[in-house]
Amino acid sequence: MSEHVYKKIELTGSSAESMQQAIENAINKAAQSVKHMRWFEVVETRGHIEDGKVAHWQVTVKVGFTID
Amino acid sequence: MSEHVYKKIELTGSSAESMQQAIENAINKAAQSVKHMRWFEVVETRGHIEDGKVAHWQVTVKVGFTID
Amino acid sequence: MSEHVYKKIELTGSSAESMQQAIENAINKAAQSVKHMRWFEVVETRGHIEDGKVAHWQVTVKVGFTID
Amino acid sequence: MSEHVYKKIELTGSSAESMQQAIENAINKAAQSVKHMRWFEVVETRGHIEDGKVAHWQVTVKVGFTID
Amino acid sequence: MSEHVYKKIELTGSSAESMQQAIENAINKAAQSVKHMRWFEVVETRGHIEDGKVAHWQVTVKVGFTID
Amino acid sequence: MSEHVYKKIELTGSSAESMQQAIENAINKAAQSVKHMRWFEVVETRGHIEDGKVAHWQVTVKVGFTID
Amino acid sequence: MSEHVYKKIELTGSSAESMQQAIENAINKAAQSVKHMRWFEVVETRGHIEDGKVAHWQVTVKVGFTID
Amino acid sequence: MSEHVYKKIELTGSSAESMQQAIENAINKAAQSVKHMRWFEVVETRGHIEDGKVAHWQVTVKVGFTID
Amino acid sequence: MSEHVYKKIELTGSSAESMQQAIENAINKAAQSVKHMRWFEVVETRGHIEDGKVAHWQVTVKVGFTID
Amino acid sequence: MSEHVYKKIELTGSSAESMQQAIENAINKAAQSVKHMRWFEVVETRGHIEDGKVAHWQVTVKVGFTID
Amino acid sequence: MSEHVYKKIELTGSSAESMQQAIENAINKAAQSVKHMRWFEVVETRGHIEDGKVAHWQVTVKVGFTID
Amino acid sequence: MSEHVYKKIELTGSSAESMQQAIENAINKAAQSVKHMRWFEVVETRGHIEDGKVAHWQVTVKVGFTID
Repeated sequence: MSEHVYKKIELTGSSAESMQQAIENAINKAAQSVKHMRWFEVVETRGHIEDGKVAHWQVTVKVGFTID
Repeated sequence: MSEHVYKKIELTGSSAESMQQAIENAINKAAQSVKHMRWFEVVETRGHIEDGKVAHWQVTVKVGFTID
Repeated sequence: MSEHVYKKIELTGSSAESMQQAIENAINKAAQSVKHMRWFEVVETRGHIEDGKVAHWQVTVKVGFTID
Repeated sequence: MSEHVYKKIELTGSSAESMQQAIENAINKAAQSVKHMRWFEVVETRGHIEDGKVAHWQVTVKVGFTID
Repeated sequence: MSEHVYKKIELTGSSAESMQQAIENAINKAAQSVKHMRWFEVVETRGHIEDGKVAHWQVTVKVGFTID
Repeated sequence: MSEHVYKKIELTGSSAESMQQAIENAINKAAQSVKHMRWFEVVETRGHIEDGKVAHWQVTVKVGFTID
Repeated sequence: MSEHVYKKIELTGSSAESMQQAIENAINKAAQSVKHMRWFEVVETRGHIEDGKVAHWQVTVKVGFTID
Repeated sequence: MSEHVYKKIELTGSSAESMQQAIENAINKAAQSVKHMRWFEVVETRGHIEDGKVAHWQVTVKVGFTID
Repeated sequence: MSEHVYKKIELTGSSAESMQQAIENAINKAAQSVKHMRWFEVVETRGHIEDGKVAHWQVTVKVGFTID
Repeated sequence: MSEHVYKKIELTGSSAESMQQAIENAINKAAQSVKHMRWFEVVETRGHIEDGKVAHWQVTVKVGFTID
Repeated sequence: MSEHVYKKIELTGSSAESMQQAIENAINKAAQSVKHMRWFEVVETRGHIEDGKVAHWQVTVKVGFTID
Repeated sequence: MSEHVYKKIELTGSSAESMQQAIENAINKAAQSVKHMRWFEVVETRGHIEDGKVAHWQVTVKVGFTID
């Protein structure tokens, strides 16, 4: 409703399970110390391969939160 | 086999469930009024965060369709 | 542990099921002829639409592997 | 609150007065035929020069609106 | 001379003959329904290959036209 | 004169008034906790639309400051 | 009307007052030695910060002019 | 109809005659050793100048082909 | 064979006939005043539309030449 | 081996000596307060010129570190 | 002297010593199996950090070579 | 201290020795005719390969200088 200022931080989450879980892991981790997170933007999707299979999904996101 | 012309439109779908569902929601909605859709390209993936969790996935796609 | 050289190749996998499966299909296929794959980077996500629905997900990845 | 779908259109507004007015002109014009506009993103800023001075500011924006 | 507003649409033309013809096909097709087209910008050039030869040139352009 | 190291943070300021004020709001807010800010770079300009008018300008900047 | 050739030069203007004035300063300066300037394109917007406030706006533009 | 995997390779063709011929030269050459080529994407267009004239057109394309 | 330094200038050529001619027009014009041109890179392809047809092709190139 | 989350920060190092030293200066400085740094990515390379010579190399890097 | 076709491959070299050595390592390795290499283009510069210091420089290059 | 205007030119330096020397060669050469150079930005790094080794480093920079 008014003239907020937001800070954006860049996080890389990883997950053995899925791209989406990698993002959620990053946001869950950040939620332990950052309040008022409002949105994220996917910046990059990568992964590690072991034995010819995807071993970890790694997704980098920018997360925006309100500065009080 | 011939010299088609395509138009591309840009849509943002949202879903509380998944990135993939956000894309499918955009295409399902477009299918109500656009015929002959042929392909899509993902342009941007974002989302809203509420209470430290992903509340909505928002994916922007370009959708190409044949102009008759 | 030391001064490796990697080659990166570009692959497009497709899947009727999901974005993630399209990536895994590309890597599984490559694993038949390429050894020592180490990581991938998603370059582009597209798909085909038939009858107003996503028919195939198509994801292009770069895959890096060690050159012996 | 729910799973909206948005369409984005690309407009170029021009103004002899200012960059900001060029954007507002584009949005005012669009408002005559497009409902439920929600956000815009600046894509490009250019202008015409006449007699060694800025004659027109031309700003291209993408405008997102809800599809009912 | 004044404060016009332009809309830009994205089209993909195809031609068995040439890149340039693909662009002209897109613009000719659009001219059947869009008036006051003023400029275009080439966004992407691709093509289909059949039997080891270019079968179709496919060029994507953005076309700008005046909104009355 | 010497070999400084700078850190860059990313902020989004908003303003109902102007693009320029949105940037100044972001920097004013940051100045409450960050010292030795030296420069900024505009990364993205967006805004919210309400009732067919620009309601808020939102400008994202990177701000560089000296690390002591 | 004919087959002109244009040259584009890149200039950075600065202003303590505004983004827009920074652009106009660059063009005014160029007008002292360059004739037949026809258009500009904004390439980058930056600025210097002193004492927690914007001290100078710095805007880089490409300027196109007809070569006689 | 099914879940193909494609590999993309990057080629630069050159021609004294035309941009288009440079692309066709690259694809003709590749056709001697690569089967099942399906599409190409133009990545870069350059050329050499000799005596103030274009001596060679050089066009870089990515070519996609099915992996059996 | 040695340690040359090159300067690159940016030119926009136009032609009623073709993309390729627009590039050649730019280089021919530059050849009247610039010596030792060695290569060019296509930066942007645009055009003007009149009466629903391409009236002018406009191609922007960077041209590199040796500084003596 | 597990599902780490990384944070990425952006730093600009400077050095009168070399590009490489500028990067090392940035990382050495960060090491005083940031633990578990794992990788960096070069984002931008610039420098200051005084009396016609490079006076300082300035390299911007993103540095990723594990969040415990 | 005539209408060559080139292929470009993408390699990542690493070196504990320097950025430049990482590139040379990649090219030396490639020279064992690839003939007629003509040029390279740096695509990305990264590195690993251990104990707060750069442990490895990693540089990705595209290498072009003539196809006979 | 005041409202300077800068011009930016684009130069490519080459060196058989190093990337860094290629940049310094470009700036030294420019210093023979351009005064008041203030900063540079690296745009592209390439090189020539002969006999499987780097023969020349070629680095393109933009150089900014004050217009009096």
